[in-house]
Amino acid sequence: MSEALKPGARIGILGGGQLGRMLSVAAARLGFATHIYEPGANPPAGQVADRVTTAGYDDAEALAEFAASVDVITYEFENIPTEALDILEAHRPIRPGREALRVSQDRLTEKSFLRDLGLMTAPFADVTDLASLEAAIARNGTPAILKTRRFGYDGKGQVRLKTPEDAPAALADMAGAPAILEGFVDFTHEVSVIAARGLDGQVACFDPGENVHRDGILHTTTVPARLSAAQRTDAVLLAARILNALDYVGVMGVELFVTPAGLIVNEIAPRVHNSGHWTQNGCAVDQFEQHIRAVAGWPLGDGQRHADVVMENLIGADMDRVPELARERDLALHLYGKAEVKPGRKMGHVNRIQRNG
Amino acid sequence: MSEALKPGARIGILGGGQLGRMLSVAAARLGFATHIYEPGANPPAGQVADRVTTAGYDDAEALAEFAASVDVITYEFENIPTEALDILEAHRPIRPGREALRVSQDRLTEKSFLRDLGLMTAPFADVTDLASLEAAIARNGTPAILKTRRFGYDGKGQVRLKTPEDAPAALADMAGAPAILEGFVDFTHEVSVIAARGLDGQVACFDPGENVHRDGILHTTTVPARLSAAQRTDAVLLAARILNALDYVGVMGVELFVTPAGLIVNEIAPRVHNSGHWTQNGCAVDQFEQHIRAVAGWPLGDGQRHADVVMENLIGADMDRVPELARERDLALHLYGKAEVKPGRKMGHVNRIQRNG
Repeated sequence: MSEALKPGARIGILGGGQLGRMLSVAAARLGFATHIYEPGANPPAGQVADRVTTAGYDDAEALAEFAASVDVITYEFENIPTEALDILEAHRPIRPGREALRVSQDRLTEKSFLRDLGLMTAPFADVTDLASLEAAIARNGTPAILKTRRFGYDGKGQVRLKTPEDAPAALADMAGAPAILEGFVDFTHEVSVIAARGLDGQVACFDPGENVHRDGILHTTTVPARLSAAQRTDAVLLAARILNALDYVGVMGVELFVTPAGLIVNEIAPRVHNSGHWTQNGCAVDQFEQHIRAVAGWPLGDGQRHADVVMENLIGADMDRVPELARERDLALHLYGKAEVKPGRKMGHVNRIQRNG
Repeated sequence: MSEALKPGARIGILGGGQLGRMLSVAAARLGFATHIYEPGANPPAGQVADRVTTAGYDDAEALAEFAASVDVITYEFENIPTEALDILEAHRPIRPGREALRVSQDRLTEKSFLRDLGLMTAPFADVTDLASLEAAIARNGTPAILKTRRFGYDGKGQVRLKTPEDAPAALADMAGAPAILEGFVDFTHEVSVIAARGLDGQVACFDPGENVHRDGILHTTTVPARLSAAQRTDAVLLAARILNALDYVGVMGVELFVTPAGLIVNEIAPRVHNSGHWTQNGCAVDQFEQHIRAVAGWPLGDGQRHADVVMENLIGADMDRVPELARERDLALHLYGKAEVKPGRKMGHVNRIQRNG
């Protein structure tokens, strides 16, 4: 732990949502103080952070002051403007590093990176105009999904094409944004691997979780996932290959489609991930602490779980169920302190601990 | 949950040490914002709280403002001046209530209360001068311990008397403070019950933990404790009797000596307790969340554990062991963010999760 931050050091977190909030709590548990940088007022993470800076990513002065006040910088989301990163990096290390952000900020770059690593992805093609879209459809067929290359999350910025005739309308929906056409993958279920890599190159993976989505948003993650021993090994090796290729430091979420032909990488997120929330009640070191350990140069937890867990997201009006959930045995509530309930908004999650016997 | 606070409500916590810090994190997990009141600058709890007021317990204006800003008030320590409580209570409910504080702030009142409930305690006697001390020694013998009636913790304010001849020197050590002489109890080991009572009178106990002290400070708590089924039942019934008698709302730590003649109550603490820290990694709802649930009028967790745990305190220079502890498997680190390491100072704790098989 020669390069390791000592308790008392300060960790800067870009983004004040629920992920920043849970990172902040994990950092505190290791004796670190956190400083949140967030453009929006009253961010959920601010309630459990030592300091909060409310400023935009175009505020060079605020960014520089923030960077100078901390020992290392990390983030809860990948769409941080390059110019902001340039300013921050002049002062303090950013972990995970720039390469991970560059790759994951753009679906086309990400898919190309994964393919070049020898990993399987959905068929994909760059779409710049109607001609390139029609050529992609001719090659990969329909149904297919047209997605913006950047700034998509939770199913936003996506249009499904049922037939080739849907092409013009789908392209219009992109409103001129660079896009990528992805072919459909015939998968039995989706799993994700929450993988971590330390400053010393050590890699540790949590047990894969099985994900179920509703309306394009993660609904539940169940651990253990339905996977054969061979698939489990494949999932871990594949995740390690991605982390090593990026010289990655921190936690990454790797979403995988399980198919008869093998595991297909759906997408990667260079941060703690919703499908890793189960680790809070299943592991001695959860994904949030694992991430903080990595960016602080500490040894990683080994990722082994001591309990099976089913995580369920609380979205929008699910908040009305809190009184009833609070009565449920072996259930751990995790609410995000968001002032306003909105449809589709992630308000919290619960972890149901599966008691053996 | 008709009287229950809703997520978004504010919980005021008197005291900004590690207990306030872990209460604050637990409150955040339920969607509450916390406001810490603490005379000392830069309290550990402040790093994970929404608001901090730095002011003394004699600052009537600050107390009133604090109280008005929150929905309910709780505390991490029992020695809150009565005048401060009067001001606070004029604005908002204080939970646990005044009666619990009155009883536990004074060793003589506490022991008398327990005896009047029909519970066993160490032999004790009020000491106001040398004559009453000598009379107490004549009645209960030596060895014995002379303790200040108020403001003692972690072995402070205590003198051991080996023989009757130690009386004058021991009394001088009290420096005129009201005192109590406690006889020695011949016990095999000490256990504690972390008990909780909700606003509706519901009682829930965590499994008793077995405590080992070093230099008058808690060293380890091991769960499960060595107790027979009958002793376990006794411990829970006894704790419930105390909570019900006080119409208590919140978590209480009840320390018990295990003797061949039965369980003897050593002392009670009207708050979350060091010997309950193991619950953070053994239970879906830990003692901190249990306390917050009680004071917020929520249903309690059932207290059942899903893992065996050994908690070890990190005192003073134990902080040097953190790099090594961070490498240990199945170990959860909990550091308190205290800037300065001092001998005898509680800096953190670890929970070792006992994997079955």
